[in-house]
Amino acid sequence: MRRWATVLGVSQPVRLPFDPIARASQLWRDRWGRESHASSMATATSIMRVQQLLLAQFDAIAGRHGLTFARYEALVLLTFSRDERLSMSRIGERLMVHPTSATNIVQRLVAQGFVERVPNPADRRGAFAVITDAGRAAMEAVTRDLEAADFGLAMLDAEQHEVMFGLLREVRVGAGDFDG
Amino acid sequence: MRRWATVLGVSQPVRLPFDPIARASQLWRDRWGRESHASSMATATSIMRVQQLLLAQFDAIAGRHGLTFARYEALVLLTFSRDERLSMSRIGERLMVHPTSATNIVQRLVAQGFVERVPNPADRRGAFAVITDAGRAAMEAVTRDLEAADFGLAMLDAEQHEVMFGLLREVRVGAGDFDG
Repeated sequence: MRRWATVLGVSQPVRLPFDPIARASQLWRDRWGRESHASSMATATSIMRVQQLLLAQFDAIAGRHGLTFARYEALVLLTFSRDERLSMSRIGERLMVHPTSATNIVQRLVAQGFVERVPNPADRRGAFAVITDAGRAAMEAVTRDLEAADFGLAMLDAEQHEVMFGLLREVRVGAGDFDG
Repeated sequence: MRRWATVLGVSQPVRLPFDPIARASQLWRDRWGRESHASSMATATSIMRVQQLLLAQFDAIAGRHGLTFARYEALVLLTFSRDERLSMSRIGERLMVHPTSATNIVQRLVAQGFVERVPNPADRRGAFAVITDAGRAAMEAVTRDLEAADFGLAMLDAEQHEVMFGLLREVRVGAGDFDG
């Protein structure tokens, strides 16, 4: 069990000589004897662990180009928006992060010259965030590197991607994320 | 593509009438024509999305008992440690979070009466964190509720758990997390 907690907080590979999640699952079974719960715990913990491993890689890749993955996401959002601009309120809504976080992300991007604020003619109190040429170049560089790294998933073949996507999709539908 | 960024930042189900990740993947294919990268992007995004959905549920469950999932993890760590105690430095190491975060988590638990600090006889500057009866009761209550919720994964059957665990295990081995 100790290893379960250990695993959840890790942000870097630890290269243990054994699978700590499999061990945690075994300890759960031994201690509480609840087989299906031990399996669910192992799957949930694995998802959290893989998310951490991927995010660490994505942040490192974005970092090479002066970004974090969160700021890269905001640039992608702007790039694919109509007119490559969005109101500040819409950015928070689209990224679905706390408005304070969205503001913080955009402030950093503005300070870096990757985003400009322009007045919103329809709302005198509001402003648009617009991606700059430098922002577009940084976004494209990160995209190229993420693709080159195959999003940290080069170890899976096409069929495995399909199976994994399908299983994760079931979880998303089951959690009410969208109408499947 | 817009939906891709949207999806990544979401912490609550959005219940869209379509699968935003499948759509983002299709847009990626249409725009850049890189089939395998679009699949990898879709899998990576799905992992991040499911992690968010699960963490939101786990935090909500822990919240019913006055905890966050991070504080619950620390209590599990203490419970399964020899003598139910750990030095502060070891807690940071075991949870593998920044020492500041570990200190913060333990301070909150101490303030709640779920953990006590006791002197470490082997290190006059250090201290042990020890789980209290109230802490153990809270930890057990959260564990019961997490199990009752089947860790948010009741939609998967035993075989699907096995397949998912195996695929995620490949990613973890490939990322150097442990020697598979």
